[in-house]
Amino acid sequence: MSLIVQKYGGTSVADIDRIRNVAMRVSKTFDEGNKVVVVLSAMSGVTDALIKMANQVAYAPDKRELDVLLTTGEQTTVALLAMMLKGMNYSAISLLGYQAEILTDSDFGNARIAGIGARRIKELLDEKMIVIIPGFQGSDQNGNLTTLGRGGSDTSAVAIAAAIKADMCEIYTDVDGVFTADPNICKKARKLDRISYDEMLEMSSLGAKVLQIRSVEFAKKYDVPVHLRSSFSLEEGTMVVNENSDMERLVVSGVTHSKNEARITLKKVPDQPGIAAKIFTPVADAGILVDMIIQNTRAEGMTDLTFTVPKSDYKKALEIEKKVAGEIGAEAVIGDENVAKVSVTGVGMKNHSGVAARMFSALAKENINIMLISTSEIRISCVVEEKYAELAVRVLHTEFGLDKE
Amino acid sequence: MSLIVQKYGGTSVADIDRIRNVAMRVSKTFDEGNKVVVVLSAMSGVTDALIKMANQVAYAPDKRELDVLLTTGEQTTVALLAMMLKGMNYSAISLLGYQAEILTDSDFGNARIAGIGARRIKELLDEKMIVIIPGFQGSDQNGNLTTLGRGGSDTSAVAIAAAIKADMCEIYTDVDGVFTADPNICKKARKLDRISYDEMLEMSSLGAKVLQIRSVEFAKKYDVPVHLRSSFSLEEGTMVVNENSDMERLVVSGVTHSKNEARITLKKVPDQPGIAAKIFTPVADAGILVDMIIQNTRAEGMTDLTFTVPKSDYKKALEIEKKVAGEIGAEAVIGDENVAKVSVTGVGMKNHSGVAARMFSALAKENINIMLISTSEIRISCVVEEKYAELAVRVLHTEFGLDKE
Repeated sequence: MSLIVQKYGGTSVADIDRIRNVAMRVSKTFDEGNKVVVVLSAMSGVTDALIKMANQVAYAPDKRELDVLLTTGEQTTVALLAMMLKGMNYSAISLLGYQAEILTDSDFGNARIAGIGARRIKELLDEKMIVIIPGFQGSDQNGNLTTLGRGGSDTSAVAIAAAIKADMCEIYTDVDGVFTADPNICKKARKLDRISYDEMLEMSSLGAKVLQIRSVEFAKKYDVPVHLRSSFSLEEGTMVVNENSDMERLVVSGVTHSKNEARITLKKVPDQPGIAAKIFTPVADAGILVDMIIQNTRAEGMTDLTFTVPKSDYKKALEIEKKVAGEIGAEAVIGDENVAKVSVTGVGMKNHSGVAARMFSALAKENINIMLISTSEIRISCVVEEKYAELAVRVLHTEFGLDKE
Repeated sequence: MSLIVQKYGGTSVADIDRIRNVAMRVSKTFDEGNKVVVVLSAMSGVTDALIKMANQVAYAPDKRELDVLLTTGEQTTVALLAMMLKGMNYSAISLLGYQAEILTDSDFGNARIAGIGARRIKELLDEKMIVIIPGFQGSDQNGNLTTLGRGGSDTSAVAIAAAIKADMCEIYTDVDGVFTADPNICKKARKLDRISYDEMLEMSSLGAKVLQIRSVEFAKKYDVPVHLRSSFSLEEGTMVVNENSDMERLVVSGVTHSKNEARITLKKVPDQPGIAAKIFTPVADAGILVDMIIQNTRAEGMTDLTFTVPKSDYKKALEIEKKVAGEIGAEAVIGDENVAKVSVTGVGMKNHSGVAARMFSALAKENINIMLISTSEIRISCVVEEKYAELAVRVLHTEFGLDKE
């Protein structure tokens, strides 16, 4: 007998038929002798519809009240699943966030879980109940409803799994698992059986939208084994586990790409102390996240400074830097929206030298020019022209031996 | 400065524009220097849609979980109104049933309010907040969500008004108040300025669907002045008040009618002790409410027994009585769905004799045959052929001097 948390995303509970599919899976897991806690998202599209409604009501909807509104989405799905399971003669009960004692801070719309009172959940599990909890929501110490931000249901599931010391946290979604590359652009991509928390963290932050980053951080911190799999198939998915677990010994476990990038260059910037602060502070103040930065020293105390921002913030950032350029006496500001970031990730890199060199030469062989580079202990990212993104992914996928047989 | 509870029904919050209308009314009341608590229903149609969804999920949806589902309707409207008022720069806050400490019993779907912790509401009012509470919902002592049954929002509003000792409970709806008769069938009907709790109770139970009966009982018990009015006009509505208040001194204050009636007669029933129990117990066991009963003694120890049931239960009741008739040796069972109940109501009857006689002769003058009669201290009801219902209302409206000038 195992203690299992199963989380189903919005597409898995999108309508009554899909909720029935979830009920079948849950009941099967229960019938196999396991204790089961289910965490649900809202039906896909519902949260967006609620936000749209809120925006019709107020220019900048009050965050506390927005959370009161948004929590209705998951409240609906947990009630429906509980009804369905009871209709199938299973003992099931829904526990809303505050009933399950999911305590968060008071940062409405982006709250962080502070603790989970596992007592009530465990009591109900001991009474052979299937416990159904809405993801994405909790309540603060004053009893106000809170939400955890987009994708927060993943975090709810992992946090609950940690609190009740579950043997496994299964995250059901509409993809089969984590792939070595996006199968849509790389036909030879294959599903990974296992991946480490750190690799998953890097991939999540690189735009592989399979798990909310915060949920992976949580899983890593509390060593919760996560099984990422599809609710539309019976295939095993990808296990996200501790690095020391029995894993495939690959140097690179995945190639990711993101087209949500734009590049801005300030030309002939006077190379003086404090100049970087003048360039980046106004961008940060505007809430724009700068990702990669590169500085090329030129002659005569001048330097070129290039950085990347999300494509959606490109115009705003460009505007800001044009002002800055005038103030600091830079020669010009140029930008480019047609860039993409291609990355290779793998814990194996820690023990293998020359991964970067292999990456650069593989790209060079195809005449793909690298504009910016950034690295972490287990990742190397390159910014290239957008039109080369898919080719770059395929080239690197082959180079690092990831192609399926 | 007054302490005012305003309750808005489903049609008053049916869409964003109407919620805006509610926000304008609430803010106006607040600006006039009053403390305001707002109680809201779900958008009209939403509760029905949720019930429909529940019925798709399970044959007989679990009542606890159905309440979890249904409470999302009012949760949505309170959040939207709070956002809108905050967007208009008012201090407003939503308090869900459990946050407002609306404690009920655990009769899911039909819970009764056991108490309201007024402390939190009062604290927020003292902080000059507009407090917005969903009607229809509460929570039991174990923290389970509960609902109060159809029309329960009226009861929520009156109970909250009683708990915080409000000066007035305004019930906003889509009608202008309580009329002397249904204006759709009686052109001369006029709006009553005042009506007593008892008259309102009788009228509510007679099918004048303006206020949930339980809310009137609550108002009477705690002497809460209720102002029933339209959210679509600025006209005063009808005050529902204590009988001893300054009221129009009418013998009859209203004529009501209900077509939701059916009549069943058991012919030639042996007139023996215990026979009535044999006839009515199986009907009660089937959850059918018997309204009026009449017994006509015939010769030879035989009696005819006639009673009325809601039209929707007619077929079931007829079936049951056909079995009963066989068992007790009654000659026949006949029934009639084409009947209606016409009633006159008024506290003035207590001090006036001959009201019944005036009623019967007014109907006789139009050749309207009376099939059954029942009376209370302040009401007389007659069952007549359905086709005469409208005529009977108009005749009685004129007879008792209710026609407007």
